[in-house]
Amino acid sequence: MTTVSLTRREGLLGPAYRHFYEEPVEFVRGEGVHLYDAAGEEYLDAYNNVPCVGHCHPRVVAAIAEQAARLNTHTRYFAAPILDYAERLLASLGGGLGHVMFTCSGSEANDLALRIARFHTGAAGVVVTANAYHGVTSAVAEISPSLGPSVAPGPRVRTIAAPVPGGGDDPEAEGRRMAAELEAAIAELEEAGHGFAAFVADSILSSDGIVPGPAGFLAPVAATVRAHGGLYVADEVQSGFARTGEEMWGYQRHGLEPDLVTMGKPMGNGIPVAAAAVRPELLEEFGRRVRYFNTFGGNSVSIAAATAVLDVIEEEGLREHVRAVGTRLLDRLAALEGHRPLRNVRGVGLYLSADIVAEDGDPAALAARVVNGLRERRVLIGATGPRADMLKIRPPLVFADAAADRLLAALDEVLEEVA
Amino acid sequence: MTTVSLTRREGLLGPAYRHFYEEPVEFVRGEGVHLYDAAGEEYLDAYNNVPCVGHCHPRVVAAIAEQAARLNTHTRYFAAPILDYAERLLASLGGGLGHVMFTCSGSEANDLALRIARFHTGAAGVVVTANAYHGVTSAVAEISPSLGPSVAPGPRVRTIAAPVPGGGDDPEAEGRRMAAELEAAIAELEEAGHGFAAFVADSILSSDGIVPGPAGFLAPVAATVRAHGGLYVADEVQSGFARTGEEMWGYQRHGLEPDLVTMGKPMGNGIPVAAAAVRPELLEEFGRRVRYFNTFGGNSVSIAAATAVLDVIEEEGLREHVRAVGTRLLDRLAALEGHRPLRNVRGVGLYLSADIVAEDGDPAALAARVVNGLRERRVLIGATGPRADMLKIRPPLVFADAAADRLLAALDEVLEEVA
Repeated sequence: MTTVSLTRREGLLGPAYRHFYEEPVEFVRGEGVHLYDAAGEEYLDAYNNVPCVGHCHPRVVAAIAEQAARLNTHTRYFAAPILDYAERLLASLGGGLGHVMFTCSGSEANDLALRIARFHTGAAGVVVTANAYHGVTSAVAEISPSLGPSVAPGPRVRTIAAPVPGGGDDPEAEGRRMAAELEAAIAELEEAGHGFAAFVADSILSSDGIVPGPAGFLAPVAATVRAHGGLYVADEVQSGFARTGEEMWGYQRHGLEPDLVTMGKPMGNGIPVAAAAVRPELLEEFGRRVRYFNTFGGNSVSIAAATAVLDVIEEEGLREHVRAVGTRLLDRLAALEGHRPLRNVRGVGLYLSADIVAEDGDPAALAARVVNGLRERRVLIGATGPRADMLKIRPPLVFADAAADRLLAALDEVLEEVA
Repeated sequence: MTTVSLTRREGLLGPAYRHFYEEPVEFVRGEGVHLYDAAGEEYLDAYNNVPCVGHCHPRVVAAIAEQAARLNTHTRYFAAPILDYAERLLASLGGGLGHVMFTCSGSEANDLALRIARFHTGAAGVVVTANAYHGVTSAVAEISPSLGPSVAPGPRVRTIAAPVPGGGDDPEAEGRRMAAELEAAIAELEEAGHGFAAFVADSILSSDGIVPGPAGFLAPVAATVRAHGGLYVADEVQSGFARTGEEMWGYQRHGLEPDLVTMGKPMGNGIPVAAAAVRPELLEEFGRRVRYFNTFGGNSVSIAAATAVLDVIEEEGLREHVRAVGTRLLDRLAALEGHRPLRNVRGVGLYLSADIVAEDGDPAALAARVVNGLRERRVLIGATGPRADMLKIRPPLVFADAAADRLLAALDEVLEEVA
């Protein structure tokens, strides 16, 4: 058994890797909503959305093990399970989305969506929200301003402000404001000769500060996208797979019918699998003239894991569970507001946030103290937002009331301590 | 159990997906060098490099199952196995390669290499071989002219001709010719204002027609890259992990010390995992100003699979095995040359090829008949090359003499039939 030090880690993986927490954690086991370190200490996971049906869910583990032992191959051979899965996925998406293409990561799915959108429209310009994050390939990093000024946005990219989290509650007013900014951004792209290919948005605007509502504000934006001949890409890497508790997909809360939908993180409960769902007419020429093959995308084991995840979400009624637990957690979190440095408590389902305010001091530093204080109490959350002063609470979907109570008690304690 | 038809498949996955063989195959089980259809018919796999230690190798399957049941998480927590793996990988690579960064696919690894190269050099221009294939993200498709004129090359990309497969046997002459073309390409890029960031090459030039030798011809090319301040990226997705039997990595046969090395396909025997190894000085500023996080890249299960693959390659002595079996297969394949429509038999290790010639007719059509004739005899190979008239024989590394004999007998029969 070798050991991990920051020095050894940086020596081998280099300086581009970051780690969580002032005192990094090393886990050796996971189960449900818990992670365990080598000393056997139990941590409550209120952060990770990838293990959506819980760490090491036995049904997913069995599906992976069984499939890995039987066959693991690619999409150039025929296979029934990938078609059965695609059928279920498309049924849940509805609208005009008729085809699904498989990739390994959300980054690859968003990159493919850009390729399809640019090929179809013949335009290069893309509009995103001001602090968007869509992934790490060259093309997708370029539309991820949250990566900072050394990376993005690229010259073919324009941004519009996301609604202020916890701000207005009139979806039409917010939507009109965003649509007006989008009009101006499209005009700029057209003037610069790039044209307008697509608007891409995370349906819960995670890196812009987690903006769950008012539900509906994205609808006027989508109408403006269409009016200018562009495509609406709903990035469901964060908001998909029942995360919001209201619908299976985040865009559905906004009453949208996207042209492309991308998904990733929770899709295989940790096994790399992601996808882009597409309106068929967008693929006609792309399919004929470009084609697409992703060696690992939709491989047998990834599809087995993804199928088991859908089974568990449906059979354990996780969407309904998320709605109930999330609503209760949101209410109790809101009750902490005011008499602690906590403002704008907000969320939908099991994606919750709140601003940390510092009357005289740095809110980001205070948010970091809250996150690290919770880590000391073995409760895992994160900080996010354009100024890193917002809490990010996004546990596995199987998070139950008892877990929520542990989180709330620890948070109350930490907020008292840092206030 | 649902069924697979071309109509159902195209309906769900869309027109961008291709399939192998006139009569597509559907497999339900794999073991070693064999794949099995639903009727229990056994196919000899002389094509797939991903299951490098054999389909469903028990050791890899056990590693996946055990890790999936214990913990599967990401690189923002500390973990020892990823560091142990990185250490072994870097030891096998040698040279100045000091850091390894993990991704999900070879496409993502090449995309990351481009990001690092462009950030480090401040230049955008990239040179590749004339029919190169490096992957499917937007940036990497742009440097993959084999995808056809609807995709690549992009404006910042120039190409140079690969050596003619089976052509000259003087590495210095071939290298000088390529280096001269590279000089001209760099001058063009600089004149167009793109500058020169990198030369990227598959060390066995697979899609350019499989050009294993003469070993050494890439060395003068690398010297020219350096002389012009660019970076040499060795794409080892095809030629890495003992495929050539001579060394662990294809570039080592050419006596190169690349600045970046990318790898993928066989790395996890089918579990999505890939990586870029990098000279530390290239990451100093990138790490500080850009950073990098890939959610699934280097996750616990991927690393467990990759570690088991390295174990098997070492403990089963697969490099030595590949050298012995590959040399024998090459000799026997060469013996078929001449009295059949087969020319330029070539290869190294278990990556072999030959041109199919048609005196009056279409060589690509004849190559397709050979490939489909073998498929009818339940032997799987493919066709490749700029004109799709070359055979692609690239079996799992555990391919043994008996398997080689079955392939040779079937090929002899098919060549007689189509001649």
